[in-house]
Amino acid sequence: MSAGSEEDFTVTPWEVEGEVDYDRLIQEFGVQEIDQGIIERFGEPLHLYLKRRYFFSHRDLDRILDEYHQGRKFALATGRGPSGNMTIAHYIPLEFTRWMQERFDADVYIQLTSDEKFYVKQDLSFELAEEYARQNALDIAAVGLDPDKTFIFSNLEFTKIYRPAAKIAKHITFNTAKATFGESVLKNIGWSFFPAVQAAHLLLGNFVDGPTPMLVPMGIDQDSFLKIARDVAPKLGFPKPGAVHSRLLSGLLEIGGKMSASEPETAIFLSDTAEQVREKIWNAFTGGGATKREHRERGGEPDRCVVFQWLYTLFIDDDAEMERRAQSCRLGERFCGLCKEELTEDIIGFLEDHAERKRKAEGEISKYMYDGELARRAWENL
Amino acid sequence: MSAGSEEDFTVTPWEVEGEVDYDRLIQEFGVQEIDQGIIERFGEPLHLYLKRRYFFSHRDLDRILDEYHQGRKFALATGRGPSGNMTIAHYIPLEFTRWMQERFDADVYIQLTSDEKFYVKQDLSFELAEEYARQNALDIAAVGLDPDKTFIFSNLEFTKIYRPAAKIAKHITFNTAKATFGESVLKNIGWSFFPAVQAAHLLLGNFVDGPTPMLVPMGIDQDSFLKIARDVAPKLGFPKPGAVHSRLLSGLLEIGGKMSASEPETAIFLSDTAEQVREKIWNAFTGGGATKREHRERGGEPDRCVVFQWLYTLFIDDDAEMERRAQSCRLGERFCGLCKEELTEDIIGFLEDHAERKRKAEGEISKYMYDGELARRAWENL
Repeated sequence: MSAGSEEDFTVTPWEVEGEVDYDRLIQEFGVQEIDQGIIERFGEPLHLYLKRRYFFSHRDLDRILDEYHQGRKFALATGRGPSGNMTIAHYIPLEFTRWMQERFDADVYIQLTSDEKFYVKQDLSFELAEEYARQNALDIAAVGLDPDKTFIFSNLEFTKIYRPAAKIAKHITFNTAKATFGESVLKNIGWSFFPAVQAAHLLLGNFVDGPTPMLVPMGIDQDSFLKIARDVAPKLGFPKPGAVHSRLLSGLLEIGGKMSASEPETAIFLSDTAEQVREKIWNAFTGGGATKREHRERGGEPDRCVVFQWLYTLFIDDDAEMERRAQSCRLGERFCGLCKEELTEDIIGFLEDHAERKRKAEGEISKYMYDGELARRAWENL
Repeated sequence: MSAGSEEDFTVTPWEVEGEVDYDRLIQEFGVQEIDQGIIERFGEPLHLYLKRRYFFSHRDLDRILDEYHQGRKFALATGRGPSGNMTIAHYIPLEFTRWMQERFDADVYIQLTSDEKFYVKQDLSFELAEEYARQNALDIAAVGLDPDKTFIFSNLEFTKIYRPAAKIAKHITFNTAKATFGESVLKNIGWSFFPAVQAAHLLLGNFVDGPTPMLVPMGIDQDSFLKIARDVAPKLGFPKPGAVHSRLLSGLLEIGGKMSASEPETAIFLSDTAEQVREKIWNAFTGGGATKREHRERGGEPDRCVVFQWLYTLFIDDDAEMERRAQSCRLGERFCGLCKEELTEDIIGFLEDHAERKRKAEGEISKYMYDGELARRAWENL
């Protein structure tokens, strides 16, 4: 599924090009806006990501929240293609999932797609794919999810995933997989099969506990991956999984488009040092003038500023304060250095906290993966 | 791979049509005859199946036996697509595997392809696919393989098979799978992936114990399934698996062609009652004349007689005795009733023994599947 490809932007799981028009995306993907009516069903206080409509659209969230308020619990699923480095963009859906878990007392299933990475990356060894999964599991545990209500698993280790994947695979023709995942499913038959493994994750609560509404926080660019799980769910007697979609956090070097782990200058990694953060933010694309003089004369463009967007989306909750800053930037009174410094400090503080939480998570990781309440249920019931 | 399809017979994993010319098959499949030179390396006494050249061709058996005699052990792999009923034709490669295990002190890996059956059979439920695997495991255990040197596993239960399958899948393009397994791999993506699961079985000793020569007793019609495992093995640093091929046991109702479990009159099932055996053998196709008179006048054709073939291949070891019978049949002196009676009694005796061994096997099944020496190594090392 690709949106806007005829015009000035493209959003698919493989490609994000141009400045994304999210209103048009909602139309073209056939998803729903997260409007005020739904926001109210979340209750107060709102997570900043929701308040900022960073999570901006959904599938079936209304139905899932309606049922929740009638007493039916749902479970959350989010995943990660493990690699050596996780970025802040990878952290966001996890943090949002943590908040949703707390707010709705939801079980959480986190799939590390070690198998997919192995299939897709020609030079990645099986052993390294597994090692990345172990490393990333620690970063994920550091997010602070409930270790008795969260199951983190890597497909190459939790091979019981083959059982629900087989049940699903029977309902997916090769041509459906190709239509959804693209020509790449031809490259090797691991890839051909993977859509079933992914759908098994998106429906996993159903396999562990019987029919269970599932909700998947994800970047909007990943939406088409939900299609197979939604198509197959009714055939297995399960409710269709819903989704909440986030916008795409701008990479540091241009507004719009995606942060890419393979271009380190565009991204902040959870493992970056303070020094690296300082340098990257210093070089970030801003809405400021090319020179101080130009900035003073013409003013800046906070709406087209990566630094402003990051502060607004990720860190600063105070609307009035953000509005004041935007004004003073537009008037050429506030200079980029100030915003960059603040963002730098916010990120460094966040990364320090994360590193500390990651150290603590080492003692908890086995609960997430093997012997917490949900993990045990998953290993036993599949 | 199909042989002879342009002319008067066809042998593929999906289809056996016409009377098979095994000499031509050897040419067209590019396999080797099991000749006297190889036979001698088996040592005496020979299994009847070898003596009768029921196992008649091979791949790399010479290399594997050479290495064996130089002190390198090999492992055997044979499989079974579990269904409600196993026939005598399913029993043969298992019995031959048992004999090879004893003769060469070889580990044996027996895969129950519950997943494949589930993918392939539209109406087969997951639960029934698993139940068939459990039932068939008992029939297999009854063959008398060494429970500490034999690992019987069902893919939907021993999901660790997904690990070696993933390693293999990375090396198989979808088009290679299609070329080997036919258009059916398009039907669902479980089917698309299955060639990797099967190859994982044919190489399993390598994954459990490090590089290990594997030898696969199989019907010649299944030979093309070996191709993928042979292609991938060197890429993983493993020796190519070899094979010993059997002819196709005639179904009861015509000479040539295959016994089919879906046409019960053509087959003897391991679960058949004495009464059923009597009736089926009574109705079997023979080389005898249409009437007693015709038989007396023109004589019979033992070479085109299912009953004679079964006795010759499966039961009677005495060459001179078989030659005498053939002669007296050709002369119209020996009538079909006598051979049918003998075959009936032989089969009933075999089935009674089997049922008895199956009862005993119930106490051993957990060694084969979970806690025998080889089973434990497989569960631990994968």
